[in-house]
Amino acid sequence: METQPDLQHMTIPPSDSQLIALSEDPWNAEPRGDLLRQFFLTPQQLFYVRTHGSIPAVDPTRYRLRLTGLVERPRELSLDDLRSMAPARTVTATLECAGNRRGELMAIRPIPGELAWGGNVIGTANWRGVPLAEVLRAVGARAETRHVAFTSLDEARFEGETVHFGSSIAIEKALSPDVLLAYEMNGEPLTPEHGFPLRVIVPGYVGARSVKWLGEIQLQERPSTNPYEARDYKVFPPEMTRQTAPWSRAQPLEELSLNAVISTPQDGEMRAAGPLRIQGYAISAVGSPVERVELSVDGAKTWTTATIVERADPYAWCFWEVTVVLATGERQLIVRAWDTSKRTQPEDASRLWNFAGYMNNAWHRVNIHVA
Amino acid sequence: METQPDLQHMTIPPSDSQLIALSEDPWNAEPRGDLLRQFFLTPQQLFYVRTHGSIPAVDPTRYRLRLTGLVERPRELSLDDLRSMAPARTVTATLECAGNRRGELMAIRPIPGELAWGGNVIGTANWRGVPLAEVLRAVGARAETRHVAFTSLDEARFEGETVHFGSSIAIEKALSPDVLLAYEMNGEPLTPEHGFPLRVIVPGYVGARSVKWLGEIQLQERPSTNPYEARDYKVFPPEMTRQTAPWSRAQPLEELSLNAVISTPQDGEMRAAGPLRIQGYAISAVGSPVERVELSVDGAKTWTTATIVERADPYAWCFWEVTVVLATGERQLIVRAWDTSKRTQPEDASRLWNFAGYMNNAWHRVNIHVA
Repeated sequence: METQPDLQHMTIPPSDSQLIALSEDPWNAEPRGDLLRQFFLTPQQLFYVRTHGSIPAVDPTRYRLRLTGLVERPRELSLDDLRSMAPARTVTATLECAGNRRGELMAIRPIPGELAWGGNVIGTANWRGVPLAEVLRAVGARAETRHVAFTSLDEARFEGETVHFGSSIAIEKALSPDVLLAYEMNGEPLTPEHGFPLRVIVPGYVGARSVKWLGEIQLQERPSTNPYEARDYKVFPPEMTRQTAPWSRAQPLEELSLNAVISTPQDGEMRAAGPLRIQGYAISAVGSPVERVELSVDGAKTWTTATIVERADPYAWCFWEVTVVLATGERQLIVRAWDTSKRTQPEDASRLWNFAGYMNNAWHRVNIHVA
Repeated sequence: METQPDLQHMTIPPSDSQLIALSEDPWNAEPRGDLLRQFFLTPQQLFYVRTHGSIPAVDPTRYRLRLTGLVERPRELSLDDLRSMAPARTVTATLECAGNRRGELMAIRPIPGELAWGGNVIGTANWRGVPLAEVLRAVGARAETRHVAFTSLDEARFEGETVHFGSSIAIEKALSPDVLLAYEMNGEPLTPEHGFPLRVIVPGYVGARSVKWLGEIQLQERPSTNPYEARDYKVFPPEMTRQTAPWSRAQPLEELSLNAVISTPQDGEMRAAGPLRIQGYAISAVGSPVERVELSVDGAKTWTTATIVERADPYAWCFWEVTVVLATGERQLIVRAWDTSKRTQPEDASRLWNFAGYMNNAWHRVNIHVA
């Protein structure tokens, strides 16, 4: 990225962070579930941070976004250029890391070198920015364009090499008016850890496609060869390893899957006997909204339907709650969701184990001690 | 202690502990405030653990309590001997460590070598055991007896020496029917960390007097010379140090002071704007129950009276709650209690600083971020 050759980088999480850090350099952190569940729109301070390397400290006045590849009129766009290209658009969308709930998979069988995420690597915001489609229209995408690749200004290490994080999406998705080059989150400028000054938002896709600190957009015939697109964020059968996996033959992760998580109480906590209000979130793929959320306290023999208390389809999670009466002892709470296509979640996380620990959407179970 | 020369000791906290460990060896731990505040009677798993050394692994069949000193009929009592001496008695009492809320004092000025306790080194239980007074009656206390000293079976390190934890109380307090040699807590046998098989319960006094793993009771004319009684658990003026303090001239800490703590939300947490339910506990000295608890959200300009939702005078805390409406921004919640003698708490913890960090009962302040 020649546009800002003296770009500085930050890596230390701020001392007032509301998040639980899983690693400090690079900074990776998720909120406590009960705090996350308070806000239908996740405040930036409670929004998970997933980074693969540095957090660039970008000077917005010197920032330029490069548009390259199969572009009729290659450009380097300032933030002002971008804002003047098209009216701003706001989209309410949930971002979820493909590694959300990996910790449960790691408890089944180790997953070396990956982060043991809990169930809170997810957040929802009102994203405001310029539709990517409008920018592509302005610069002109040549007819051969099949994929739109995004490259970050960060500095990451992938298998020993220094690289920028990157990703791509198919041109059909890129032309959706809801895919944004976003500069605001819940009415505030993006903070450095969330991609200041500009990030991609690909609603409905795993978080890895919503590249932060966007430095370059490349239009191309083939998907991105960035290692984070080509050799990461794919799911393989359990018998394969990172070394044996046929990376080039597997589809990259795109759509989020149906998932439901209990936010409060949290696993291992103690609660008083009697009526207990259980709260959580659920998410589903675009076009198949969450229809029903069910909770079982008797090992899946019977299920109580939860109330959906807030939702913002098609790209956002919903919030649910249900009150159950619990007697003293060790109790397991189990949640599962159904979507409008009558699909539901797999029962057992051990059936979903894969060497990178992605896309765990088994029934979420929380063990509590009722006293 | 010759009664069990091969006594084993444990030091590692269990992996399923509900507590936040401040040190592992010796094990010192307190619960999260919001979990603590759920139970008026604190479950053993949520009850703070304060140890100065090992946790003895006592074989109850071989256990003997030695009664020595100014005793008419010196005895070594088995647990069965003790239980047959007098009818069991149950007392609801709060134990609070004299170091509760020390962390706030340490933020004002360092307190080297002490634990930075939060505000949850406190708990309440139904204690069941034999009144100490009945045991003293059975063995006969000679007329010169002025103090009753307790010695633990633990192994602690005090200024480089291996010692047993110990303490003493005046004979007048020892003869109260509510001072117990307790073997049950909330209907269950004591767990190892809470003093199995037998501990002293001195209701209304700082926790340090309620000696765990009781090995010996010594009747004497003078207070205990155990270092934890003689050179610890005393409060000196701020200009003094551990080295310069006139230890022998200061009174040992006995009665608990008036205190109130906000349990939920916790300091530094984020909350949604609008009505917020604030919950906490309050405690006062025996004979002067908590009369009123007040909360301020405007820097002590105005106060809202909280509702006392549960209490069990004269030895237990009370639980309070109040709902306030908060606008977005950084907000400070302040709580203070008043007792029936119209005493209230000091405003400023900096006025209470002492080199050992005891007895902080300043207004409790919780800073939250309202979004």
